[in-house]
Amino acid sequence: MNKYWTDLVKRLTPYVPGEQRSGTDVVKLNTNENPYAPSPRVKEAINGVSGDSLRRYPDPQALALCSSLASYHGVTTDQVFVGNGSDEILALAFMAFFTGSKPLQFPSISYSFYPVYCDLLNIEQQTTPVDENFCLDLNGFNSSGGGIIFPNPNAPTSLAVSREQITALLKRVPDTLVLVDEAYADFGAESSIELIEEYPNLVVSRTFSKGRSLAGLRLGAAFANADLIEALRRVKDSFNSYPVDTLAQAAGIASIDDEKYYRHTIDKVVQTRDWTTAQLQDRGYRVLPSSANFLFVSPDGIKASSLFNALREQNILLRYWAKEPLSNWLRITIGTSAEMERLIAAIDNITRKKDH
Amino acid sequence: MNKYWTDLVKRLTPYVPGEQRSGTDVVKLNTNENPYAPSPRVKEAINGVSGDSLRRYPDPQALALCSSLASYHGVTTDQVFVGNGSDEILALAFMAFFTGSKPLQFPSISYSFYPVYCDLLNIEQQTTPVDENFCLDLNGFNSSGGGIIFPNPNAPTSLAVSREQITALLKRVPDTLVLVDEAYADFGAESSIELIEEYPNLVVSRTFSKGRSLAGLRLGAAFANADLIEALRRVKDSFNSYPVDTLAQAAGIASIDDEKYYRHTIDKVVQTRDWTTAQLQDRGYRVLPSSANFLFVSPDGIKASSLFNALREQNILLRYWAKEPLSNWLRITIGTSAEMERLIAAIDNITRKKDH
Repeated sequence: MNKYWTDLVKRLTPYVPGEQRSGTDVVKLNTNENPYAPSPRVKEAINGVSGDSLRRYPDPQALALCSSLASYHGVTTDQVFVGNGSDEILALAFMAFFTGSKPLQFPSISYSFYPVYCDLLNIEQQTTPVDENFCLDLNGFNSSGGGIIFPNPNAPTSLAVSREQITALLKRVPDTLVLVDEAYADFGAESSIELIEEYPNLVVSRTFSKGRSLAGLRLGAAFANADLIEALRRVKDSFNSYPVDTLAQAAGIASIDDEKYYRHTIDKVVQTRDWTTAQLQDRGYRVLPSSANFLFVSPDGIKASSLFNALREQNILLRYWAKEPLSNWLRITIGTSAEMERLIAAIDNITRKKDH
Repeated sequence: MNKYWTDLVKRLTPYVPGEQRSGTDVVKLNTNENPYAPSPRVKEAINGVSGDSLRRYPDPQALALCSSLASYHGVTTDQVFVGNGSDEILALAFMAFFTGSKPLQFPSISYSFYPVYCDLLNIEQQTTPVDENFCLDLNGFNSSGGGIIFPNPNAPTSLAVSREQITALLKRVPDTLVLVDEAYADFGAESSIELIEEYPNLVVSRTFSKGRSLAGLRLGAAFANADLIEALRRVKDSFNSYPVDTLAQAAGIASIDDEKYYRHTIDKVVQTRDWTTAQLQDRGYRVLPSSANFLFVSPDGIKASSLFNALREQNILLRYWAKEPLSNWLRITIGTSAEMERLIAAIDNITRKKDH
């Protein structure tokens, strides 16, 4: 600690992302990246940007990208906001919507960045328990608080709630802002974007990092009615006017344009997810029904922490949280077929050794 | 306004950047962009990044880029922090260092984003007047406040203070954090980076947008002792873990590597600045002695607002603030020789017309 640190800095417990170990022999199933490269059109778009364009500031509102997202999702351009990854979208949304005096409600098991934002921005927190099967009951949220946020599908559980359940919540708490974090929605959850027209209390956030394979490019988006989008713009323009660079804007548009490629890679991930689920279930593992590009898994015959460490020694990285009630669960990103076959073989090898 | 807007959003007055009009006939001298494209090595580095790299998250700490900056500036890697443009660096620094109960001190004429950050983060402001020649007297700052920030060279005045003056300030206020914003230092001011070793209360921010011609790529850096850098990291990791994308990291390193190109373009800008200064002075204009890539100019024989509007009609964009004491001044970015010749010709044309 340092005498120039403010009390805020002293009390922060920052978010810790999954390990970014590199190397050709590493099977990296710990940060929910897409195993497939982005559409080849993305690289073409990036390579097509001239040096002379780079010397200029980007369009601060990224209107061409917002317009492309608007067409794709069937909304208007003023209902779209983009940022430097969906983490920035969330941070700006916390500043814009959740700075009131009442606590923010989110699930007890959820994206672990939410409590970090609350600490940073001095927002009270109130968690709503998930049930013994890790299911989120939206009836646990009420209108007494200063806003509601939940991921759909949830992380790290991979479980989705239906659009019908979300609609019921939006109707029940009309004076409360609800942010649905759809980082993983590309892989199977029902999106709530179409509800923004009817529900003025809804904000939906998305990312290009997962379904669009662009984690390295930092691109996220939010959808809401124009008034809420304007609130996000005001906060952005009070924090960092140009968060999305020229290359990311061009790449984002190119990735939206290649729908065929997107469908193809999503399908491959979903097929591999189903294959991996069946393999793990065959071995007696409990696997929650995933709507995401990862599985939430409780092993059989070996402790989650032991399996995590044994796989790590073999350069297969998963994500593990030592805290209850997650301590006997592992989060496994869906990789390529070959990577998942290697995972299953490694598990069998570790478990066999353990039997002897 | 909207019922879901918080009081914070309602009271914000966001920063307004210069107009981003595009078109081949536009002479854009209003946002202090570099008239020369970045080093060709930058585009090579960008084109060399594979799609497969883009599907992965970037290194959250950007260690290779920090290491490259550290070597270049003669400091250690743990004394360097990078962000999504120097505006993000400043926003995170405001959160990390200036959230105390005492007012932040900055010059009365200065980068207009500083009061915007204060509004967003609920930080009290205390401005220190510049003198009648717009010079900043560092003796105006004292240790009673919750921090000091100033640009060197200052914006929009283009005037620099010496390293000796800054050293005297750092000694005089050892318990107060001082942030020197060196966005324009590439064009002639004495950098304070070498002072971070000796002064634990100093943070220096820089940008790749101006000297390195990379405004479109959003890349900024901060230099300070390792403890202060750690404070910035904690805030970053509580806001947005991966702000600098893979392409920006690669491009940043490539731009640092091409010192020859950098020196060449800086020299051209400085030569054009001196030529433009002489031309304007020949016409009786008052031009402050610039250490930046822009001039601060008070016209002769025509009001600044009239000249601004007349040039704007001819697609020559300058920056103008209607407020006192700036209302008879214009900020003129240094463009190419041809652009500045066109500016001078347009001024002569407008002034001649006015004489008749």
